[in-house]
Amino acid sequence: MSESRIHCAALGAKIMSADEAAALIPSGVNVGMSGFTGSGYPKAVPAALARRIEAENARGQRFRIGVWTGASTAPELDGALAKVDGIEMRLPYQSDPVCRERINAGEMEYIDIHLSHVAQFVWFGFLGKLDVAVVEVAGILPDGRLIPSSSVGNNKTWLEQADKVILEVNSWQNSRLEGMHDIYYGTQLPPHRKPIPLVGAADRIGEPYLRCDPGKVIAVVETHSPDRNSAFSAPDENSRRIAGHILEFLQHEVKKGRLPADLLPLQSGVGNIANAVMAGLNEGPFENLTAYTEVLQDGMLEMIKSGKLAHASATAFSLSNEALAELNADLDRYRERIVLRPQEISNHPEVIRRLGVIAMNGLIEADIYGNVNSTHVMGSKIMNGIGGSGDFARNAYLSIFMTPSQAKGGAISCIVPMVSHVDHTEHDVQVLVTEQGLADLRGLSPRQRAKVVIDNCAHPDFRPALRDYHERALAHGPGRHTPHLLGEVFDWHLRALRGERM
Amino acid sequence: MSESRIHCAALGAKIMSADEAAALIPSGVNVGMSGFTGSGYPKAVPAALARRIEAENARGQRFRIGVWTGASTAPELDGALAKVDGIEMRLPYQSDPVCRERINAGEMEYIDIHLSHVAQFVWFGFLGKLDVAVVEVAGILPDGRLIPSSSVGNNKTWLEQADKVILEVNSWQNSRLEGMHDIYYGTQLPPHRKPIPLVGAADRIGEPYLRCDPGKVIAVVETHSPDRNSAFSAPDENSRRIAGHILEFLQHEVKKGRLPADLLPLQSGVGNIANAVMAGLNEGPFENLTAYTEVLQDGMLEMIKSGKLAHASATAFSLSNEALAELNADLDRYRERIVLRPQEISNHPEVIRRLGVIAMNGLIEADIYGNVNSTHVMGSKIMNGIGGSGDFARNAYLSIFMTPSQAKGGAISCIVPMVSHVDHTEHDVQVLVTEQGLADLRGLSPRQRAKVVIDNCAHPDFRPALRDYHERALAHGPGRHTPHLLGEVFDWHLRALRGERM
Repeated sequence: MSESRIHCAALGAKIMSADEAAALIPSGVNVGMSGFTGSGYPKAVPAALARRIEAENARGQRFRIGVWTGASTAPELDGALAKVDGIEMRLPYQSDPVCRERINAGEMEYIDIHLSHVAQFVWFGFLGKLDVAVVEVAGILPDGRLIPSSSVGNNKTWLEQADKVILEVNSWQNSRLEGMHDIYYGTQLPPHRKPIPLVGAADRIGEPYLRCDPGKVIAVVETHSPDRNSAFSAPDENSRRIAGHILEFLQHEVKKGRLPADLLPLQSGVGNIANAVMAGLNEGPFENLTAYTEVLQDGMLEMIKSGKLAHASATAFSLSNEALAELNADLDRYRERIVLRPQEISNHPEVIRRLGVIAMNGLIEADIYGNVNSTHVMGSKIMNGIGGSGDFARNAYLSIFMTPSQAKGGAISCIVPMVSHVDHTEHDVQVLVTEQGLADLRGLSPRQRAKVVIDNCAHPDFRPALRDYHERALAHGPGRHTPHLLGEVFDWHLRALRGERM
Repeated sequence: MSESRIHCAALGAKIMSADEAAALIPSGVNVGMSGFTGSGYPKAVPAALARRIEAENARGQRFRIGVWTGASTAPELDGALAKVDGIEMRLPYQSDPVCRERINAGEMEYIDIHLSHVAQFVWFGFLGKLDVAVVEVAGILPDGRLIPSSSVGNNKTWLEQADKVILEVNSWQNSRLEGMHDIYYGTQLPPHRKPIPLVGAADRIGEPYLRCDPGKVIAVVETHSPDRNSAFSAPDENSRRIAGHILEFLQHEVKKGRLPADLLPLQSGVGNIANAVMAGLNEGPFENLTAYTEVLQDGMLEMIKSGKLAHASATAFSLSNEALAELNADLDRYRERIVLRPQEISNHPEVIRRLGVIAMNGLIEADIYGNVNSTHVMGSKIMNGIGGSGDFARNAYLSIFMTPSQAKGGAISCIVPMVSHVDHTEHDVQVLVTEQGLADLRGLSPRQRAKVVIDNCAHPDFRPALRDYHERALAHGPGRHTPHLLGEVFDWHLRALRGERM
């Protein structure tokens, strides 16, 4: 079966094992790998490379590479390479527990980059030389063009920028994905850039295949391995409440004439709250919706199935096994409604601003003035990364951030006096939602924002202490615009670090 | 002389005094005023309104309005209205000392907004109703169209969105400004937005006049008053050094092939360092430069005069009297090289990203990891506002921030362990420059950034303490990705608040 995926003789001649391909990657190089939110990443070569690194290490040879991807991958890639300490520098996003531990132990460098910036930074030459690309595809056409896999990510850029290319042809990927992708080849370097001609979430502005110079391909590896499909958890009570507040708000905005009846294209971060919001929308009053987002999760697939969501644009799938079965069972129909694009287009400020996206993203903590920390625990430890949240929040029509009001069984308040790290400033946060309620921050000064954030979003157990802080800061802080008491502003975090309740 | 500026009979019939016009503005309304960086703001009606408010206050009547502008104005507008406590809510940017005092005393609400967001937020209905527009123009055509003044700012939006319009026709403004402006009327609300067809800094995509429904005009006031032209100070030693580091860096980037020989369009914040950088470029090796910026200061005018700068696009002038005389003496020539646009276009992420702007902005403090505070002193007191720095920094080809390494005669380090307020996150700061040197943060992890920021940018007097903090944070912080000691991270600011050296 797998042989039928490689229809180009020149590339068919380069078929080899993952170990043979991994042997072609030298230490010290930068490797651009496919993969975005656990889909479309290479399944065999990274693991083979990890084995090789382990063997080199056992011989006392240090062997490390730079790993660039679309976004997060899976244990077979990030996990395997991090375990053998094989990653010198990782970018632009990761969510692997072993990786995270290495980074926070100071054993691996990590650059957390807006996902829309990555491709252009490589083109600009800002991140150094890309030596090798390792890209999973669903098939190879007779002329050498590639059928993309379950994510597009930065693959176009990796294939164009790398000196050498290793392809993994994964026969586990549905061959009927062919035609779902839209690879835009109209990007240029400044000063030669032209407008991106995308004016609707469903628009196709490119071609369905990835181009690849066959002369650069040094190996083709056949695989038959599943993506890291995560189990879908049914929304918990908090997520359902958050979704309820958002639905009520969107209905209010439609009633006030500030949103059309079919809303505007939805962007939704990854995770259970996001899925709950989609479930709420699926049962809600809105029809003929569209999505312009990074990742297509179960919730959105369900909405396409029900007919609520007319079209979705993303750069990757991130599905449970059940949702994947649903997708595969009716792929011809879904292909009409889903477009997968390079992340430089799915996350492009120009397009997000033009379409007027409704952005909904999660967070680690928010402060009373509306600043958001999406990435760092206690200001120091990276959790995952900023991903595309900045691309969407800054350029959205409506920028919504959502979180349960507390964590660790009530020991931690997700609303704090001052966030310990800022990823999204007060300027980019228009609506904050917890299970407690929704704070509409539009048109409010910092002092006014603090009142509604505390009253509407903080957990009642933490409200008195937040009010007390804010009132004392107003009375004794060095200024009353965004009043703070710098001598105690992180006492909440310090208590948590001592294992106490915030 | 002034009569010749009003060529429309219907509007000529509405000429009245500033006091009569001010009497048409009720308390409690939102007023959209022209004005950007001290140019093109109404000179008479705000002052008349301030007198009226003072009289109402004396009778025990509270009288306050919302004041929306392009950006900063002048003592006759912000100063006069703030002095009589006549402003309930101010947005999106100000730099007036009386205003600032009121805001920081908690007596006036202020919303600091990305300048590219303002027009669209008003169109979206996010900031409430705009009741009255008070807009300075340089003249009125027979058909009622308006010749814009020395700034465009949000005037197009104010004229379209306000229920009532008051025009100030200022005969002090050079009538030959006619034809310099480019007002783009192709904006739409989502989902009807189309690409903005601007592909070069010099492109004209609109028309030279502002449209205005004559039926909405309730008053026309004739004035003959100068803009708040600030004296130009020659660059000091620190500014010259900063400029020198930037020039050296740009030459290096050209040599490395990462910038074209004629660079890319320049954006330059306001102030003496910005002027110094322009003076440096004016004596430097680059030819045929362009600018795509907010504000055209003396430095850029000088570069146009010398021929170094082929074209400049901005939304406002901000000139010294000497530079203004130069502009007026040769306006026909400058009109060929300068375009003034609405700020929603001058600051549009779509256009800034497309053109690949080199953004150069100032700051209050930066931290060792590259986060930038542009707005708040000691985390609480607003200085001016974020202005357009976020529009440019996030979307630039190169995002450069610059500052002297210390302030208050060495009592304050502008490089601190953690900024007390974040306007630009580590994700949006690629280059940091002080008189000490330049830190190229591209492709560096937070730990690596800290090293070059301390070594290259911090003042030598503060380097040992910064290194000590960073090393102890690495050893004892809760994580080594962006290591911080939250219990002491603001000790630097607390010392400054006690009047001690940081």
